[in-house]
Amino acid sequence: MAEKFMSMRNLKFLLYEVFDAASLTRYDDYGAYDRKMLDMVLQAAWELAQGILWPHFQEMDRDPPELAGDVVKVHSSVRDVLRTFGEGGWIAMTVPEELDGQQLPQIIADACHFIFCSANYSAAVYPGLCDGAARLIENFGSQALYDAFVPHMRGGRWQGTMALTEPEAGSSLADIVTTAEPTDEGYYRIQGQKIFISGGDHDGVENIVHLMLAKIKGAPAGVKGISLFVVPKKRISETGDLVSNDVVTSGIFHKLGYRGCPIAQLSMGDKEDCRGYLVGEPHNGLRYMFQMMNESRIGVGIGAAAIATAAYYAALEYATIRKQGRMIHEKDPSLPPVPIIQHPDVKRMLLFQRAVVEGSLSLLLQCSQYVDLKRVGSDEETEAYALLLDLLTPVAKSYPSENGILSISQGLQCLGGSGYCDDYPLEQYYRDARIHPIHEGTTGIQGQDLLGRKVMMKGGKAFKLYGEEVRKTISKAVGEERLQIQTRALEEALVLVEEVTAHLKGVAAKGDADKFLADATLYLELFGIVAIAWQWLKQGIVMVKGIDGAASEKEKNFYQGKLYALRFFFAYELPKTAGLARRLMNGDGLTVEMQEAFFKD
Amino acid sequence: MAEKFMSMRNLKFLLYEVFDAASLTRYDDYGAYDRKMLDMVLQAAWELAQGILWPHFQEMDRDPPELAGDVVKVHSSVRDVLRTFGEGGWIAMTVPEELDGQQLPQIIADACHFIFCSANYSAAVYPGLCDGAARLIENFGSQALYDAFVPHMRGGRWQGTMALTEPEAGSSLADIVTTAEPTDEGYYRIQGQKIFISGGDHDGVENIVHLMLAKIKGAPAGVKGISLFVVPKKRISETGDLVSNDVVTSGIFHKLGYRGCPIAQLSMGDKEDCRGYLVGEPHNGLRYMFQMMNESRIGVGIGAAAIATAAYYAALEYATIRKQGRMIHEKDPSLPPVPIIQHPDVKRMLLFQRAVVEGSLSLLLQCSQYVDLKRVGSDEETEAYALLLDLLTPVAKSYPSENGILSISQGLQCLGGSGYCDDYPLEQYYRDARIHPIHEGTTGIQGQDLLGRKVMMKGGKAFKLYGEEVRKTISKAVGEERLQIQTRALEEALVLVEEVTAHLKGVAAKGDADKFLADATLYLELFGIVAIAWQWLKQGIVMVKGIDGAASEKEKNFYQGKLYALRFFFAYELPKTAGLARRLMNGDGLTVEMQEAFFKD
Repeated sequence: MAEKFMSMRNLKFLLYEVFDAASLTRYDDYGAYDRKMLDMVLQAAWELAQGILWPHFQEMDRDPPELAGDVVKVHSSVRDVLRTFGEGGWIAMTVPEELDGQQLPQIIADACHFIFCSANYSAAVYPGLCDGAARLIENFGSQALYDAFVPHMRGGRWQGTMALTEPEAGSSLADIVTTAEPTDEGYYRIQGQKIFISGGDHDGVENIVHLMLAKIKGAPAGVKGISLFVVPKKRISETGDLVSNDVVTSGIFHKLGYRGCPIAQLSMGDKEDCRGYLVGEPHNGLRYMFQMMNESRIGVGIGAAAIATAAYYAALEYATIRKQGRMIHEKDPSLPPVPIIQHPDVKRMLLFQRAVVEGSLSLLLQCSQYVDLKRVGSDEETEAYALLLDLLTPVAKSYPSENGILSISQGLQCLGGSGYCDDYPLEQYYRDARIHPIHEGTTGIQGQDLLGRKVMMKGGKAFKLYGEEVRKTISKAVGEERLQIQTRALEEALVLVEEVTAHLKGVAAKGDADKFLADATLYLELFGIVAIAWQWLKQGIVMVKGIDGAASEKEKNFYQGKLYALRFFFAYELPKTAGLARRLMNGDGLTVEMQEAFFKD
Repeated sequence: MAEKFMSMRNLKFLLYEVFDAASLTRYDDYGAYDRKMLDMVLQAAWELAQGILWPHFQEMDRDPPELAGDVVKVHSSVRDVLRTFGEGGWIAMTVPEELDGQQLPQIIADACHFIFCSANYSAAVYPGLCDGAARLIENFGSQALYDAFVPHMRGGRWQGTMALTEPEAGSSLADIVTTAEPTDEGYYRIQGQKIFISGGDHDGVENIVHLMLAKIKGAPAGVKGISLFVVPKKRISETGDLVSNDVVTSGIFHKLGYRGCPIAQLSMGDKEDCRGYLVGEPHNGLRYMFQMMNESRIGVGIGAAAIATAAYYAALEYATIRKQGRMIHEKDPSLPPVPIIQHPDVKRMLLFQRAVVEGSLSLLLQCSQYVDLKRVGSDEETEAYALLLDLLTPVAKSYPSENGILSISQGLQCLGGSGYCDDYPLEQYYRDARIHPIHEGTTGIQGQDLLGRKVMMKGGKAFKLYGEEVRKTISKAVGEERLQIQTRALEEALVLVEEVTAHLKGVAAKGDADKFLADATLYLELFGIVAIAWQWLKQGIVMVKGIDGAASEKEKNFYQGKLYALRFFFAYELPKTAGLARRLMNGDGLTVEMQEAFFKD
């Protein structure tokens, strides 16, 4: 096993030096904290990760969940993790104090989630799901629902889930067929099937609480007829006991990776005795769920960046130790081999990883910061930050997911044949991370969301605000000689994104929706690269100051290294925008015209 | 399981319509065949693949090799496969008739290998290894060695291997420490360790024959002191029995994929009783091995393209059956969902796969054709084809390997959550294919080979010949209106490659070898994209004729589909050259300058 799964130094660089998280404690909402206390929270999160997540990272993969009879057996550490997280308040980090939460800034909570995921993604998912599901009840459910379920979920005693997908309804939630029949007794009778439910059943808790989408009988067709229910595996009987609620686990899926967490297939109401409790108003379920979904999408981005980070440190460790070959300019074969980290091509692979993981984390914390500023700002600010967050959510989900895979693949490549074998963790990271472009909305769906919805909403207001944000960073960087090339390159790249966007809006204006969105995935990719370039320049402004004022050689090296990663991103990654823009400006409807029959041979 | 693992129609399109393989039968060397017989060979290969490889594809992955005591147990089908291949002459496809071979054109043999690999990569490796190892003995070994080993290997009774890698010598073969001590009895005493030996030991054969690199005691340092030996697991005693040769399997590796084939760690001479038989002259081992290595590199390319092909057909099948969502322009949610193949973004993912797999296969068969033409041509032609083959080998190895992974990943993505689960074969293809950028020389090594050696050799003669070849294709395409855009784009892309090459040669001329080769991997990527564009245009010339003269709707659709894949490659993939060239023309030595200390934090 590698020694290190994340860099606290880099995390603090981003939190405090780039995003000035400590300044949030000036606001009433976060007034209970100061910098020192935030540091203590981060340290405690790291110790938790190091102590109870990291040690089981490999074992949870090799000893995956099993469906034995009607019980999904998971690794024994899951129970400890949930209990420890629950008792320590880690499932209520951003919950208000009056609801017994920690009321931490989102950016600190997300930083902790990043630490957990980098130590053991599968294990970190369990408490994360409890948190998200509980928040749905808090925000939209009745007091009675809150009392019955939330304390157990936040305490890590009951598992929360998001139960959306069905055999015939994945990307298209409009087509769910799980039904809810009203009764006179305050509950609905649920009948249907759900698949791919993370944490959907396991023996590490006393109960499972599904936040489930279903259609009330007679509801309108499509997404406008979807309601949200709490459907527990065991319901509370009149005598206060937990009794079966007719939710049966009909199977678990065997997955490429992310094996520490079971993904279940559920059958509700086989005995016509499954009760669901409506959350909020009928037919508003998708709107409620999308609150959780948007948070989950940021969560997926964090998970992807975290796995890629752990993979980067494993590759870095190997490259430092492993000796092979000599420098290209060295002709004497009798000299001893050098550590492979000295080979430029290996440094290239490592810098690529660093550029992806530190760029991704920066964009994710940027989103967290918007959540916090949205909370503490004026009404006008709140609207602006909400729009920026909406716009960037598909990007913050997809860039780390797609590039995380490439980054981990390069990490694996650094190890050569060893990377392909399970003596090293790279092959597991490679498998684990592949889920991220799929769950919580595929990359294709994110592309449609970004271009078809977010860029277009409110007459393009979010996109305009985004341009202003990027230009603020550019203004701050102007005049710094060490960032001159990159500042100019970012300005040009932003103009390119604006041109492409204007061009595509023109296509949309002509009414050809298919052609407009045909290359939305490429647009997402282009947008993502430029957004990450923006984040690197934002970091760059701090780095150059850091180099000049570094108190030690070690500190100076840290900033220097980051400056190389920044330069790498602009030299190797940003140029990819040229090819993407070329395609997007010349969309010829190729993929719209292509016929199914032409695939036959 | 998917129904289809490759397209015979496309394979024949390439073989006969693009590369005119049937015309090879006009030469004496291949005069025993005609088109009909070649078709029969292909059909027989397909039946073999369908009959004994494809049925065990999944099972061999789930029931991987095990080291039990001193026996490596492999799937029971391995024995049948080797015997059937051996008895059917499939391990001697290109061997001359006088050596009991089939004397088939290389292009047909490679096509058969492609069929086998697409059905079951792991299984196809066993006979492939026997073939390569036997050829080394045929070409460089004595008659006695030939008689003792080759018939058994070509008969599928003894397994052949390539034993190069050692714990401390992977990419850098100069550093091998396995020793060979001469004796007076015609053999050498071998002592050392080898790792990552494919097919290095298993119970599907009676014996294992390692073609092994070792250093004769007192040999010069580096690659100039490496010799090649035959080192069998069991040697033939004076009484003709097979007795232990002191080769012990000390372990097998647990791999991400490619699990049907064991990768062994071997220990030779623990009891000082391991005998090796010198092949050819002392100290010439690496040169001999490189003959096999170069063929193996093409073989890896074929394997990569084959796995990606099978993945493409699995994704295509799913996309045709799976219904989800409605067309973007369709607003009525009560309409039934459509097969996902109708969504432009899914067509984009499928076209990407098709562009990669059919482009890769074309480049690989181009290389096979050069092998054949090299054999039957005049001396001058032979030199030219040999140079072209040398130049294109690293490209034909790497492009399918690197892009095969991306292609399979897109195939997996087409299936969404199902792609991540083992109910479908995509996750296995995704794991299996990841070996290809690693074995037989990593992508980094291929980049160094292409730019540092192949482009530079003989004053750039191979590179010049390559340009002429590409321009021949361009000349043939000029005037065809349906290929006008692509013809011009290829001409521009070729010029770009020439400019980048000239620029890099300038860097080399200044003597800065590190900087010259720092981005060799990017150069390989750039070169590869343009080479595949060339192959697509070459196919395009045939396609447009095919569309015009198609005898049936089905045939017309086939050519139409290929034309869309061609257009896709030029619209979506070729533009990537812009960003790559931008970096290569502006190399600033970033990865050379980056210091190990800057990676610390």
